[in-house]
Amino acid sequence: MSKVPYKIYLTEDEIPENYYNIRADMLNKPDPLLNPATKQAITKEELEAVFCSELVDQELDNTNRYIPIPEEIREIYKMYRPSPVVRAYNLEKKLNTPAKIYYKFEGNNTSGSHKLNSAIAQIYYAKKQGLKKVTTETGAGQWGTALAIACSLFDMDLEVFMVKSSYEQKPFRKNIIKVFGGEVIPSPSDTTEVGRKILAENPNTSGSLGCAISEAVEVASMDPNSRYVLGSVLNQVVLHQSIIGLESKIALEKYGEYPDIVIGCAGGGSNLGGLIAPFISDNIKGTRDSKIIAVEPASCPSLTRGKFVYDYCDTGKITPLAKMYTLGSGFIPAANHSGGLRYHGMSPIISKLYHDGYMDAVSYAQSKVFEAAIMFAKTETILPAPESAHAIRAAIDEALKCKETGEEKTILFGLTGTGYFDMLAYESYLEGTMEDYIPSDEDLKLDLVGEL
Amino acid sequence: MSKVPYKIYLTEDEIPENYYNIRADMLNKPDPLLNPATKQAITKEELEAVFCSELVDQELDNTNRYIPIPEEIREIYKMYRPSPVVRAYNLEKKLNTPAKIYYKFEGNNTSGSHKLNSAIAQIYYAKKQGLKKVTTETGAGQWGTALAIACSLFDMDLEVFMVKSSYEQKPFRKNIIKVFGGEVIPSPSDTTEVGRKILAENPNTSGSLGCAISEAVEVASMDPNSRYVLGSVLNQVVLHQSIIGLESKIALEKYGEYPDIVIGCAGGGSNLGGLIAPFISDNIKGTRDSKIIAVEPASCPSLTRGKFVYDYCDTGKITPLAKMYTLGSGFIPAANHSGGLRYHGMSPIISKLYHDGYMDAVSYAQSKVFEAAIMFAKTETILPAPESAHAIRAAIDEALKCKETGEEKTILFGLTGTGYFDMLAYESYLEGTMEDYIPSDEDLKLDLVGEL
Repeated sequence: MSKVPYKIYLTEDEIPENYYNIRADMLNKPDPLLNPATKQAITKEELEAVFCSELVDQELDNTNRYIPIPEEIREIYKMYRPSPVVRAYNLEKKLNTPAKIYYKFEGNNTSGSHKLNSAIAQIYYAKKQGLKKVTTETGAGQWGTALAIACSLFDMDLEVFMVKSSYEQKPFRKNIIKVFGGEVIPSPSDTTEVGRKILAENPNTSGSLGCAISEAVEVASMDPNSRYVLGSVLNQVVLHQSIIGLESKIALEKYGEYPDIVIGCAGGGSNLGGLIAPFISDNIKGTRDSKIIAVEPASCPSLTRGKFVYDYCDTGKITPLAKMYTLGSGFIPAANHSGGLRYHGMSPIISKLYHDGYMDAVSYAQSKVFEAAIMFAKTETILPAPESAHAIRAAIDEALKCKETGEEKTILFGLTGTGYFDMLAYESYLEGTMEDYIPSDEDLKLDLVGEL
Repeated sequence: MSKVPYKIYLTEDEIPENYYNIRADMLNKPDPLLNPATKQAITKEELEAVFCSELVDQELDNTNRYIPIPEEIREIYKMYRPSPVVRAYNLEKKLNTPAKIYYKFEGNNTSGSHKLNSAIAQIYYAKKQGLKKVTTETGAGQWGTALAIACSLFDMDLEVFMVKSSYEQKPFRKNIIKVFGGEVIPSPSDTTEVGRKILAENPNTSGSLGCAISEAVEVASMDPNSRYVLGSVLNQVVLHQSIIGLESKIALEKYGEYPDIVIGCAGGGSNLGGLIAPFISDNIKGTRDSKIIAVEPASCPSLTRGKFVYDYCDTGKITPLAKMYTLGSGFIPAANHSGGLRYHGMSPIISKLYHDGYMDAVSYAQSKVFEAAIMFAKTETILPAPESAHAIRAAIDEALKCKETGEEKTILFGLTGTGYFDMLAYESYLEGTMEDYIPSDEDLKLDLVGEL
């Protein structure tokens, strides 16, 4: 076996030909979305008012293990994929750990993250259906950018509701979306009924993904040629992101490696779900026993402190109900810098897997995360997104445990993106003005969650 | 022959083992640097007051064709190299051209450009010599970032003088340099004698690379444990950047391709010199006849409108004299957005090659460059740096000529970097407030140039 290179690149022909649908292998399926009016499992027809048809099929499909990736999508993936699996030799050396640390790096595209994987798929299906426009929300701005790139390739109109705190913290994000032809509106806005209502109740709100989703869904539902698209949480997104895990597994296999520990940051859960899918699958089958770790911000701890109940996916309560770990659809996280992880709920797939004991979850305060981000940057030369740095933090801590025990574990984590648009957050950390916000039990008001 | 993939990646073992020194093959060598006091060719001893010894050897070496790349440098290169050669299938389709367009993409590292290639080499040699600190200038901020990354890897102190217009246009650039541990000072500053002098004469100046160089050289010369490092212009930098051209040539050869046209943007000339070196070499030997094109901003047109004379490399006139195309060391370019190309002079190697007829040069006004940048982003999904977009503009125009003539030429251009820190410039273009500045003959005052 030759030395593992710094970066393991697959060839373009090795891009998976199928998405892997983890639901097919789950012993207990995730609970269905419910129509909030009837409390019955939502139907294909009902969902088609919001999402395009083929994506609805994917959303509801609990049985087909593999969904073919259309050749048109694979051709676009080839422009920036396969993404490399990188051996963090320098970080290992810095930590003086016997652990072998690998990361799957999804940041080398202009969206700056893994979000482009699902954006391309969703816009492909929307275009195929003859739609003219999509609406969406964006938190950190990575999903909005990814979607703008995809819409530019398929000549589709785009309206993005951007969480106001991110819009203000990342003034350049909106420009990059505009370069690719997208329209950007800070959320909550006065352009929608639900936005006006949220503003009336809480005029100084810095927004949340939950609010922005409400606005985007409202706009899409007004126009028969429009649909709403979502960058995380949904089953279809976890499905598309499975290429992250599939590529990782193939790349590691080439060097006889299999991870003992797989770590991903968890906001809505799409990156995490995609990364871990093939490894969870082996765990379910009993052929392997990897430890799977979800990492979330202490300021928005849906898995570690939320309740596993049916809840709305949005603040305005206009979406279907999902059975998930949630802090309550009314929860508005502190305006800290983990923009992309500031979501009150969690992917129903991830929620079910976590509930059934297939993974652990940990949370970190922001300053611990940025400490890890800077150590990573200085050793591995890549400036990570704050979201991704949650996974780095956990990977470092697992590697340090190995140092104590002397175990030579193989750790794989998802480096979802780059932090070029997060320099204000880095600045506040470097200047010592960053504040760790950890909500009290009272802040979380969990006694109200689940009362629909 | 199989279809050329979107991205041609070499393996890490295929990173060149030697830098290629184009000077060894030049029939007429570039003219030597002169000591400004004596007007004699500068000696190794004199240069060693400013640069570390091994870099001085490289600077003065006109004869050794190959300079071995130390294994320590190659190991670091492996963290982000080889960089891909990309086939711009989507751009070709958009242009409906029979031309085949390839670009060597140097932007997939956190410095955002090719600058990291020389930064790593320069800091390696400085460290080897036992130095503690380096000083430098940065324009667009890419060189400063690259150097901060390299200094972080080698545990070297760093002081960066950043051109004031860039410091203000790109507020986040300084933070990324700080993440990696570098110190950033807007130039001209009151921390140096030459900075105070420049400010006294021109209090409202937005700065230039020439000013920033003066300040950085002054600071380095005050401390025996410090040296000055430069991101372009010098022979040593062109030498290090030869890995761009060497990798490009090997990658294209794998698919039976050889470029008919090679295009690079030209600021100080290092990317251009590195990209074209092996192709110019073939032209010199007469084995090939590629057309080589340097592309510069119309606002700072050293090759297309400058004079080929001995001039200072800096505004403060404290550096050696170089024989180069120059607009005069007193020329301060308009505060437009081609930050990294705003230099009054040009690499002596490039200048000599251009003077001897080995390449063409063209210049473009800024708005034509951004038009190309946005077309490129929307088709190829990568947001280019404004500097790099000069090369894109020329590549598009050459491809459009092919469309007229029906010629199936192979075009290779250097995509030196990404534009994530240039969103203010993109914003001004999108909002129609970008102004094209083309200096008049009087602005250039070329009659004063060369009067030392």
